[in-house]
Amino acid sequence: MSPRPAPRRNGGGRPAKQGGRVMQGRQVGQRPVNRDKEGLGGEQVEGRHAVLELLKARRRRIERIYIADAQDPSDILDKIELEAARLRVPTQLVSMARLDREARTEGHQGVMAIAGRLDTVPLEELLEQPNPFLLVCDGVTDPRNLGAMLRSADGAGVTGVVVPRHRSARISPTVTKTAVGAIEYLTFSDVGGIPTAIDQMNKAGILTVGLAGESKDSLYDLDLASQPVALIVGGEENGLAQLTRKRCAAVVSIPQIGKIVSLNAGVAVSIAAFEVARQRAARKS
Amino acid sequence: MSPRPAPRRNGGGRPAKQGGRVMQGRQVGQRPVNRDKEGLGGEQVEGRHAVLELLKARRRRIERIYIADAQDPSDILDKIELEAARLRVPTQLVSMARLDREARTEGHQGVMAIAGRLDTVPLEELLEQPNPFLLVCDGVTDPRNLGAMLRSADGAGVTGVVVPRHRSARISPTVTKTAVGAIEYLTFSDVGGIPTAIDQMNKAGILTVGLAGESKDSLYDLDLASQPVALIVGGEENGLAQLTRKRCAAVVSIPQIGKIVSLNAGVAVSIAAFEVARQRAARKS
Repeated sequence: MSPRPAPRRNGGGRPAKQGGRVMQGRQVGQRPVNRDKEGLGGEQVEGRHAVLELLKARRRRIERIYIADAQDPSDILDKIELEAARLRVPTQLVSMARLDREARTEGHQGVMAIAGRLDTVPLEELLEQPNPFLLVCDGVTDPRNLGAMLRSADGAGVTGVVVPRHRSARISPTVTKTAVGAIEYLTFSDVGGIPTAIDQMNKAGILTVGLAGESKDSLYDLDLASQPVALIVGGEENGLAQLTRKRCAAVVSIPQIGKIVSLNAGVAVSIAAFEVARQRAARKS
Repeated sequence: MSPRPAPRRNGGGRPAKQGGRVMQGRQVGQRPVNRDKEGLGGEQVEGRHAVLELLKARRRRIERIYIADAQDPSDILDKIELEAARLRVPTQLVSMARLDREARTEGHQGVMAIAGRLDTVPLEELLEQPNPFLLVCDGVTDPRNLGAMLRSADGAGVTGVVVPRHRSARISPTVTKTAVGAIEYLTFSDVGGIPTAIDQMNKAGILTVGLAGESKDSLYDLDLASQPVALIVGGEENGLAQLTRKRCAAVVSIPQIGKIVSLNAGVAVSIAAFEVARQRAARKS
């Protein structure tokens, strides 16, 4: 059986590879994945790096990968095709115009994957890890901020991300794209209520640190290295909820010197997360 | 002379204030500002916080402020109108649809200002300040990243921002919006060549620190507190240019623990800038 003649990903020049690619006639619009709005989300993954990490992580079922045809040759596109072939994930060439229509971000870079939704674990599982370093996102609404937080969380060595089950930003394509693959490696837990979760963390011996720009206490005065830590961030508009703030063992800010007193929420979490990483590395060495 | 009847900013409920507002018939499209592409840019300022800071900083000539009508009451809109009246800056009500057309970002929040372009100073002026802390942006192309860097630069106490005169991202409306006003307080210098500028900094006793994700040397091993510092960041795609890198006294990375090895450029600069601020504050206390 020879493969059907396939359209070429690269419009000219290089011959299209065929090995391992499955290009059936199924349309982008006819997606088989159950797209209900329950759970954490993450089913639609857009952007080259995000899709490559989805493949490399091998943590989720991948339904299908759509690649726009007539793209310039690219190492990362080659890697995506190679990994997809290795994992026997069907790859379908579509027009760029169609991907533009189907994609939910402007940054799809000619690649989109449909995967199983992200798994969650019970909070207890995050607490039982050795030396937990948790990030608690309570009411973060801007998907770019959430994506930036998750990207930095992976880089700083966060061992678990806690989100509220109900009023949480789901892991939308924009979050996924901004996190450039970090969601594939992070462990998530969705909880009924953040204040109760913080209570549980306090009882488990975790230093719960709320971030609040207006606090007079400095992040840098905390010992973040010799004990497990949870960083808690509130919504962009109103910050930490009253009850959340009350349960935190410490509420601190990142001291500001300039005229503009607020940091971007994604940046603030990144600075705090890397301060934890810095202190922990300094303690080890 | 009584003012002409004015359309109301808030569609219903609160009566529109008239004192100090000038609402002539000039159209948004007929902008009097010279919009040539020379200089640093910054003439079009969009978003509520960015426009309010433009007014509060009192550093630039402000031609006109456009405010969309039929907006919900808002403290910050009130403050913008009050400041504009105080400074006798003409304010013009326009329809939201029109502002959507004229604005260059999606985040204008119903407010846009046209101002004189941002000033620059000679590099020597930045070097003569006491204890300089410079940020050198060499080829940063994503306006959101540049805006995020500038916002954090202000917060971390950067005393001057150096950009290349030619292949620089101009301070576009997206930069201005993302920086939420920080550009009004930062001092900029545009230079003919970054490598030559770094030479000058080295000679002036400034520790020139290039940021490069692939470097094995850690940012945290540097003494950033006891001497003047310049942080140098390259383009998102290719990082520091060869010649730029050679001239830096140190090239370092922010150590990463996770699976995704790259940080967002705006986040990396923010972490590095706040590490300088942290070390400097710790040294003082």
